[in-house]
Amino acid sequence: MDTYSVKAFGTEAADADLKQMNIDRREPTPTDVEIEILYCGVCHSDLHTARNDWGGSKYPVVPGHEIVGRVTRVGSAVTKFKTGDLAAVGCLVDSCRTCESCRQDLEQYCLNGFTGTYNGKDKHSGKHTFGGYSEKVVVAEHFVLKVPGNLDLAAVAPLLCAGITTWSPLRHWNVGKDSKVAVIGLGGLGHMAIKLAKGLGAAVTLFSRTPGKTQDAKELGADEVIISTNEAQMKAAKGKFDLIIDTVPYVHDINPYVGTLNINGTIVLVGYLGPLDPMLQTVPMIMGRRSVAGSVIGGIAETQELLDFCGEHNIVSEIELINMQEINTAYERMLKSDVRYRFVIDMASLK
Amino acid sequence: MDTYSVKAFGTEAADADLKQMNIDRREPTPTDVEIEILYCGVCHSDLHTARNDWGGSKYPVVPGHEIVGRVTRVGSAVTKFKTGDLAAVGCLVDSCRTCESCRQDLEQYCLNGFTGTYNGKDKHSGKHTFGGYSEKVVVAEHFVLKVPGNLDLAAVAPLLCAGITTWSPLRHWNVGKDSKVAVIGLGGLGHMAIKLAKGLGAAVTLFSRTPGKTQDAKELGADEVIISTNEAQMKAAKGKFDLIIDTVPYVHDINPYVGTLNINGTIVLVGYLGPLDPMLQTVPMIMGRRSVAGSVIGGIAETQELLDFCGEHNIVSEIELINMQEINTAYERMLKSDVRYRFVIDMASLK
Ligand SMILES: [Zn+2]
Ligand SMILES: [Zn+2]
Ligand SMILES: [Zn+2]
Ligand SMILES: [Zn+2]
Repeated sequence: MDTYSVKAFGTEAADADLKQMNIDRREPTPTDVEIEILYCGVCHSDLHTARNDWGGSKYPVVPGHEIVGRVTRVGSAVTKFKTGDLAAVGCLVDSCRTCESCRQDLEQYCLNGFTGTYNGKDKHSGKHTFGGYSEKVVVAEHFVLKVPGNLDLAAVAPLLCAGITTWSPLRHWNVGKDSKVAVIGLGGLGHMAIKLAKGLGAAVTLFSRTPGKTQDAKELGADEVIISTNEAQMKAAKGKFDLIIDTVPYVHDINPYVGTLNINGTIVLVGYLGPLDPMLQTVPMIMGRRSVAGSVIGGIAETQELLDFCGEHNIVSEIELINMQEINTAYERMLKSDVRYRFVIDMASLK
Repeated sequence: MDTYSVKAFGTEAADADLKQMNIDRREPTPTDVEIEILYCGVCHSDLHTARNDWGGSKYPVVPGHEIVGRVTRVGSAVTKFKTGDLAAVGCLVDSCRTCESCRQDLEQYCLNGFTGTYNGKDKHSGKHTFGGYSEKVVVAEHFVLKVPGNLDLAAVAPLLCAGITTWSPLRHWNVGKDSKVAVIGLGGLGHMAIKLAKGLGAAVTLFSRTPGKTQDAKELGADEVIISTNEAQMKAAKGKFDLIIDTVPYVHDINPYVGTLNINGTIVLVGYLGPLDPMLQTVPMIMGRRSVAGSVIGGIAETQELLDFCGEHNIVSEIELINMQEINTAYERMLKSDVRYRFVIDMASLK
């Protein structure tokens, strides 16, 4: 495999800051697209992988899976892209493409395991993949998305992870004009869930633990904010929602939210990985055919659908643009939820 | 309200045996159907209500909600039934008929609470309802089912609770010829789940804790039995099922079963009311868009659909016919799971 060197930002160890380094990219194969990265969103997974919070991180870690850029080279068999096109890459850069999930455009559920954009097993190099905190990325055409030309490119980046993570359940559970949707948590995922559910025509409620976010939520499109610590408000919401998107990334009691689901309603967890503590009560589920489900990111076709939808409806993320060199302080601020609502790196700063 | 007295079998207290007694039935109103009860199935709920295991029982308790009989009188406005017709009554005898659930034929999820066939709040008497362990029952036409004439009437009775409880999730989650369905537990509900899933054309697997039930399960229509304590068998079943119907009525670990769900699969709890202990793990749900849901009995239209389906496919319950006077020993045997697979009372024995 022929390679060439590009500048990147990454870390050599779980306890080290991110710093500039050089990494190898493969020379594009006939089916590859080479993208000069213009913007890269900063996801909580970036931080957790850099610091090996989930175990299994391979170093150096070069994070970044909310990538927007411009095509600089295409392989001879590439048909969807040409040099100069806008392009985007999300959380996955490969999958087996033959299993039942892949054949149904559900690459995120590839039965043989998808290849993550960073820290995934790179089929070409045999090592691990490097993400979007870098000058360029080379990705198989099938996993490259088209970007609508009318949107703020920096603010498009978070659609590739925060956006698709909330879009996929909204679509899978058929949210539309008659739907009542609630969102738990107002961070990178939550603020996109509000915008996208609203874009689909649903009535949207934010569950928040504190009244401080009410004004912001309404500006983002929420019709209503329920303070989850207010018993009277929670009681008034009983049986109300068709779909609840729970973006909270830490352990929390979901039982009070199950009670606010309508008959046949579903609460879908997209943020929290671990045991449901306190224990989930089955009676409200049984007595109303309510479901608790999980969902992860989305497939390639679905991600393209999201980008097209956002182009038509002028939806982007709320972002704070930073330079590459500010990433370590950005991580510290993210840990304190001190960001509205997503950091995006201006990759020109890496040059 | 005019009433008349009928013989019944019930109990005056949680710690007393069931015995013969007299109860009042209302004179049929113009919209009522009077049914002479020929057979009544014996459900675990009968026992739990008689003994106040769930709290809230009102005495005397006259259990029974798997009722098959013959119409003896109809009110002047009744159009679906005439004297001499076969008829059946299941777990509910009334609901508000105006809420969103009722308007969607989901009376079992009536937002104002359905009226249970026994121990429900009787809108006519102002007291509580009496079930099918009695000579006759008077029920609003809307809640009376038609019974196919080609089936063994005694073996039809359990369709009204055990049957519809498993039929409703099979239908709601669209089980058909391409479906892979698993059933946990081989009791009254489980054996009906196998027969009905098979009748719908699905491939059917039974999860059992012990090998002893393999032969029986296959005779009922199961294609395969997985011994849930056998790690190799459980591992081989990973990612296999589209729908799992969990009929187990006591607390148990559902996490191993979630792992056997296919992408987009659902495990639906129909037996166990309480907290999920040990705690439910979200990772397998999130990484495969898997759901945990609950479901209770079924609506009236759906119950009629089930009875018609069973008529066409010659499906009935496996039963052990008993006399009314044997009910107390039958309860003791049920507690030991010593029944294949449902007791049904020959109500002629009450005369
Ligand atoms: Zn991400
Ligand atoms: Zn695949
Ligand atoms: Zn029952
Ligand atoms: Zn109702």
